[in-house]
Amino acid sequence: MTSAYDRDLDKNPANYRALTPITFLERAAATFPDHTAIVHGPMRTSYGEFWRRSLQLASALARRGIGRGDTVSVMLSNTPPMLEAHFGVPMVKAVLNTMNTRLDAAIIAFQLDYAEAKVFIVDREFSGVAAEALKLAKVKPLVVDYDDPVYPDDAPYPKGERIGAIDYEALVGEGDAGFAWSMPDDEWDAISLNYTSGTTGNPKGVVFHHRGAALMAYANTIHSGLRQHSVYLWTLPMFHCNGWCFPWTLAVTASTHVCLRWVRAKTMYEAIADEGVTTLCGAPIVMATLLNASDDEKREFSQTVTFNTAAAPPPEAVLAGMADAGFAVTHLYGLTETYGPAVVNEWHGEWDDLDRGARTAKKARQGVRYAALEALSVRDPETMAETPHDGETIGEVMFRGNIVMKGYLKNRQATDEAFAGGWFHSGDLGVMHPDGYIQLKDRSKDIIISGGENISSIEVEDALYKHHAVAACAVVAKPDEKWGETPVAYVEFKPGKHATEAEIIEHCRTLLARFKCPKQVIFAEIPKTSTGKIQKFKLREMAKEA
Amino acid sequence: MTSAYDRDLDKNPANYRALTPITFLERAAATFPDHTAIVHGPMRTSYGEFWRRSLQLASALARRGIGRGDTVSVMLSNTPPMLEAHFGVPMVKAVLNTMNTRLDAAIIAFQLDYAEAKVFIVDREFSGVAAEALKLAKVKPLVVDYDDPVYPDDAPYPKGERIGAIDYEALVGEGDAGFAWSMPDDEWDAISLNYTSGTTGNPKGVVFHHRGAALMAYANTIHSGLRQHSVYLWTLPMFHCNGWCFPWTLAVTASTHVCLRWVRAKTMYEAIADEGVTTLCGAPIVMATLLNASDDEKREFSQTVTFNTAAAPPPEAVLAGMADAGFAVTHLYGLTETYGPAVVNEWHGEWDDLDRGARTAKKARQGVRYAALEALSVRDPETMAETPHDGETIGEVMFRGNIVMKGYLKNRQATDEAFAGGWFHSGDLGVMHPDGYIQLKDRSKDIIISGGENISSIEVEDALYKHHAVAACAVVAKPDEKWGETPVAYVEFKPGKHATEAEIIEHCRTLLARFKCPKQVIFAEIPKTSTGKIQKFKLREMAKEA
Repeated sequence: MTSAYDRDLDKNPANYRALTPITFLERAAATFPDHTAIVHGPMRTSYGEFWRRSLQLASALARRGIGRGDTVSVMLSNTPPMLEAHFGVPMVKAVLNTMNTRLDAAIIAFQLDYAEAKVFIVDREFSGVAAEALKLAKVKPLVVDYDDPVYPDDAPYPKGERIGAIDYEALVGEGDAGFAWSMPDDEWDAISLNYTSGTTGNPKGVVFHHRGAALMAYANTIHSGLRQHSVYLWTLPMFHCNGWCFPWTLAVTASTHVCLRWVRAKTMYEAIADEGVTTLCGAPIVMATLLNASDDEKREFSQTVTFNTAAAPPPEAVLAGMADAGFAVTHLYGLTETYGPAVVNEWHGEWDDLDRGARTAKKARQGVRYAALEALSVRDPETMAETPHDGETIGEVMFRGNIVMKGYLKNRQATDEAFAGGWFHSGDLGVMHPDGYIQLKDRSKDIIISGGENISSIEVEDALYKHHAVAACAVVAKPDEKWGETPVAYVEFKPGKHATEAEIIEHCRTLLARFKCPKQVIFAEIPKTSTGKIQKFKLREMAKEA
Repeated sequence: MTSAYDRDLDKNPANYRALTPITFLERAAATFPDHTAIVHGPMRTSYGEFWRRSLQLASALARRGIGRGDTVSVMLSNTPPMLEAHFGVPMVKAVLNTMNTRLDAAIIAFQLDYAEAKVFIVDREFSGVAAEALKLAKVKPLVVDYDDPVYPDDAPYPKGERIGAIDYEALVGEGDAGFAWSMPDDEWDAISLNYTSGTTGNPKGVVFHHRGAALMAYANTIHSGLRQHSVYLWTLPMFHCNGWCFPWTLAVTASTHVCLRWVRAKTMYEAIADEGVTTLCGAPIVMATLLNASDDEKREFSQTVTFNTAAAPPPEAVLAGMADAGFAVTHLYGLTETYGPAVVNEWHGEWDDLDRGARTAKKARQGVRYAALEALSVRDPETMAETPHDGETIGEVMFRGNIVMKGYLKNRQATDEAFAGGWFHSGDLGVMHPDGYIQLKDRSKDIIISGGENISSIEVEDALYKHHAVAACAVVAKPDEKWGETPVAYVEFKPGKHATEAEIIEHCRTLLARFKCPKQVIFAEIPKTSTGKIQKFKLREMAKEA
């Protein structure tokens, strides 16, 4: 039924514009043209320059025929061209595909082909593997070399050597800073493509849209407490779900990007002390790097630095150490499919007064939905019924909202499965607490089913971490004729510490039901990804043989 | 042309939700149910209770048949039901029409009829005029009495007397706190109706949509620096373009609303000191009220309070006084058609080092677009050409973006005129400075055209304010046979100060070109609206006779 409010009140160019993060950079550059947008080693780029260079990149791409729906793949470190690509590529309605820089040639080739890449921008550090990949790939993109002045001259791929048709600076130089950039035709149009898994089999190329990127920029600003001219340190790779959308986010407050090619304690402390860093995002391993820095790597600083971390909740000792070192840690959770963090452990002031154990328990929870996420739920994936809010019943964590991906590129089946029943199925298992906070219990593939009982590998790992000798650990399922599966623990010791398998198992029994305790404990180095994530699939393979 | 990104990546309930501010309150209530949402005199309402009462209101309205596109008109002070209406009404897809509480019966009747009001909620303070209006109106809405416990028992409309069919608390009591509220069918759907002019002639009922209200909530949060659990003092009437959208905004950060029925120095200072107010919005007159408070009205407080002011830029003396008193003043600008503030004087740190005159000149500018406004421009309304960015060429200030209204209700002609050429025409005249900041020169109807030359009344008023005896002033056009129009100044003196007409004119000549100086100075009380805005149309009438 229509009312008077449905008549003669239509959309027009004055009252409806496509949401896009590009307008945030336009605004920052117009308002604060001289403010520093990017710090990279000794280089400083103002907001005016950042905007003009993004326009030049867009203009140069347009002249070479790049336009709506074309993929521009990049293999770049956290450097200025990566930031310019986040704006210049969507300015011509093209799609930015940021590649994991640790991939091998075969996977890169696969991803280039799958994305139908028209342009491929490569940092010299990755030229070797990129050149190999290009030999394997069917597509023949325009290859652009980026020779970062901060990258050492000698190795591994020598300075001056080229694999591409043109140098990045020359490409930008072709462009016109007065270029008339394009708003997206529709805010639902794709802005970026991020692969969640390497290759073949069931390729999952997550597609983001302009609408979600813009809303994420607002939500990140609010949840991270960014203000006018905050200073953000890049430790999270921007190739990892577009650096949780922070390349776009910082434009809202005209904040400064401090780039880092490599995550090293000394350079991080230098940036914090010398550039006045206020905010960073990083994996738990970055916290460890900061805390375990030697005295000559550390620097004094007076500001409190907001540290957003995701993945595993930080142990209490780490949190305490970080607080002492001047960092305020916020615990976030999300997936590539949710544009990065979509859940935040909103802290209640009164929780500061809890005793240590209770406080840790609160901090260990992933939390509540981001302001830009419309719903967060834990459900039975079969019946789609909500699990009781009892903090105990395990279900699948599901998302619904404007910061959920468009879907997987050219993979209707995976898309349909992911969105079955009108919710995005995360594949993560968790519980809903009575106060509405969720807590992860496992990835669905990481859960251990022993004698018909579900064992959360996270719960067992939590128990292991309470042993004084354990530095790192991971628990996976080992196939078992009698029980179906049994838990196996992999453990790394702290320097100078040691324990026996029996001692570790006995320790677990003081904390866990007997069936949850590891049947076997293996002392070995645990395989991790370049971003510090433990590779459980490798451990599962190892456990089969163990 | 379509690409792979256009296939099988459609909207579905998991990845697309209508933007609406209702989800912000839902989130705040779920996350911080016990945190105080509303303070009203001795009453305190938690976020959980605020949410439940809004649901009950929605449920009660739904039971009485109120639904999509129905208008719920309210005549309320800044009280809890006004906040509940901002959520409860849109929860049933109805449209909230907040009426100026200072209107007369004839205008109220006109507005009720024009809005086709189905419900009319009235605070006891306004029962008299509302009862009269209902006699004049053609519509027969359900009339609901709100008897505010904070409103004195005795006057002017006695406690217990009713004009409606039901009391507000009884209506809420009819509702179910478990009500299944409705997301809007489309984020473009109307959420509120605000009249910009009183009556008849050319009625302008500005219609807001859910999308704009949600985006405004993000932008207000960022530009006002609201954080988790900020405390906001209500001096701006919520009936004034939905209180610049702050009833919705505060839910993003679970901040606290401190209501005030009347803007008085003593109660404001009490709220600031006792409730820890961090933020308020108000007309310049509210600053004057705070600064001119007597010692027994003032209270000490330790926090810095953000004071957002709009309309005329505050004089330097007021800014200095406010800074000394613990307030940080931000200068905003907007119109009802832009959801309230859509322009912000983004401050550059280095401007603090300018001398006083130069600093005042920077502060006097309205500024740059809000993050949620996509474009702000000064144009020739005839040719639509942008004026040069020279700080001198006067044009009409124009807006384009997602926080521009849907249009005027049932007034296609006014809507089309307002959106001519794809921009919203504000009717305000201004200049664009070389650095992209706009500065208002006048309302188009307030400009004085003398001998073919445009005289900005604001410029003349600025000169008058620099005279030591001038407390308030306003300059309007007086018809003149020879010149067409001439400027006439109305002046109020500061207590104990005095000057002659000749002295005032001579003072202006030291600062302005001769043709801009007032030809006549009249010492009299200047008519103002209830919100402290000078009523130039009255002065123009007075000037004709002068």
